Amino acid sequence: MTHVAEAVAGVDIGGTSTQVVLCTEDLRVVDHAGVPTPAAEGGQAMVGAALDALRLLLDRNDARLRGVGVGAAGLVDARAGRILAATDSFRDWAGFAVTDAVEEALGVPAFLDNDVNAFLRGEAAAGAVAGESHVLGMTLGTGVGGALWLDGALYEGPHGGAGEIGHVPGFGDLPCTCGGRGHLETLASGRAIAARYGERTGRTVTARVVAEAATRGAPEALAVYGAAGTAVARALLITAGLLDVTTCVIGGGVSLSWDLLERPIRTALADEPPVSGHPLRILPARLGGDAVAIGAAARAQAELGSVTRA
Amino acid sequence: MTHVAEAVAGVDIGGTSTQVVLCTEDLRVVDHAGVPTPAAEGGQAMVGAALDALRLLLDRNDARLRGVGVGAAGLVDARAGRILAATDSFRDWAGFAVTDAVEEALGVPAFLDNDVNAFLRGEAAAGAVAGESHVLGMTLGTGVGGALWLDGALYEGPHGGAGEIGHVPGFGDLPCTCGGRGHLETLASGRAIAARYGERTGRTVTARVVAEAATRGAPEALAVYGAAGTAVARALLITAGLLDVTTCVIGGGVSLSWDLLERPIRTALADEPPVSGHPLRILPARLGGDAVAIGAAARAQAELGSVTRA
Repeated sequence: MTHVAEAVAGVDIGGTSTQVVLCTEDLRVVDHAGVPTPAAEGGQAMVGAALDALRLLLDRNDARLRGVGVGAAGLVDARAGRILAATDSFRDWAGFAVTDAVEEALGVPAFLDNDVNAFLRGEAAAGAVAGESHVLGMTLGTGVGGALWLDGALYEGPHGGAGEIGHVPGFGDLPCTCGGRGHLETLASGRAIAARYGERTGRTVTARVVAEAATRGAPEALAVYGAAGTAVARALLITAGLLDVTTCVIGGGVSLSWDLLERPIRTALADEPPVSGHPLRILPARLGGDAVAIGAAARAQAELGSVTRA
Repeated sequence: MTHVAEAVAGVDIGGTSTQVVLCTEDLRVVDHAGVPTPAAEGGQAMVGAALDALRLLLDRNDARLRGVGVGAAGLVDARAGRILAATDSFRDWAGFAVTDAVEEALGVPAFLDNDVNAFLRGEAAAGAVAGESHVLGMTLGTGVGGALWLDGALYEGPHGGAGEIGHVPGFGDLPCTCGGRGHLETLASGRAIAARYGERTGRTVTARVVAEAATRGAPEALAVYGAAGTAVARALLITAGLLDVTTCVIGGGVSLSWDLLERPIRTALADEPPVSGHPLRILPARLGGDAVAIGAAARAQAELGSVTRA
């Protein structure tokens, strides 16, 4: 057991499970824990479960906690530390004051981010794009999330809504879960990959099964991943044209089938290189299931500053 | 004649004409002059013609000049004050050290921007979007230019190439002048409006003639402006989704037919509102032919600071 003099914690509250990491000042993960998210029991229970897991980590590492970052799915008000909107699977989560609850329970400062922003903070702080200053982050999960790292910092925009590359037009004409049409999410999310494969084959399967079929060379499955990769390349071209970003990091369940996704992305970018002439780097996420929690810890660390500076 | 104690000048070197404005510290235009651009005679002659016009303004306003901003068409290296690339109509312009030439001749600091960035600086400093902090600027001229005003400042990106909304994919499949396909410029530039109308009617006319036909209610002409406006709306939705911008200012010759353009933009945004739920403001440019020159002056003013602070 290491004694951790100055620790920051990161919490990732997802729909199914909650991940908690305990990090040193330089964001090295000392310990981590995962617990089921009691989404049906309400915000107090969800934060309570995360805090129980965190207290366990603090005890068994004899750590002094300086602060906590929380990454949460849904629309969040990062400044107020509050959830703005959440899906039906979460009870009493919209409106819940997350940072107040954490600060009250632990007596240290707490910070809230949406999970995609936290994902990119994590990959930028200690993952695939560490040291990069201009990055588009995408999560291809059930839906498609996006986040922007500009001039070495998260760019959130005036209402905190920046980075939503999953829900802008220009990607065909299919109806999107958000009510729009032709969004990246209609081609590159796990749900979309399953749906597009279903339309071609009449089969109802998960994206993982489509990935297995594609790996075996099934043409319909390859075509679905091809369309997903081509759309991801377009998202990157749009972002690079608009913001001159140099790099893209891709996470989420769909990105685990990296070979299937990378090939059509690279083909599309070779066919249509960025107008700027500057090459674009495309990288798979490196922190896996801990990315959001580590990014949340990175946020806390960045807000608190180093101990010597504090 | 007013005596101008502390003036900044703005110069707009375009392919056909060069505009020069003399401004007070608070960017009020005291005087302006326009001269033909001697594009075929090379960089030294082009800057020389601008300087002659500027010297005339300084003399007749008895002004003390603090600095000069220059806005120029083409790819520029704003930091080095040098033209990087220009079209064939300019002789010896690519590579020309604009700010060095101006500083040597006048003995005051000079600053260089590309013309679209200068356009947005102008509209943000003293035009349609004065006081706004998150703006997409578009110029619909022969081509389509774009620029970004984020957090109250021009956002140029790591290579100075940000804002290129005219040349990102997602706008159909027509070939673009840049070599790409499906860019905004293929639908919303003056050249494109003429070309799309030509395809529908077999007639070779200018965008202005198409606008006149549309104003008279000619269905083909209205359809061409409709497609242009719909594409402009898409560009705004993409930018708002990615950057959470709140406002768009549109300039360039095509925007002079504002009624023809505004209607399809508003229809498209009503059909497909921004996912964020935040309304978007769309405004025509207000500074007309002086926007680039005033924006260049605004850049110089911003770099130099006020006299009292200096």
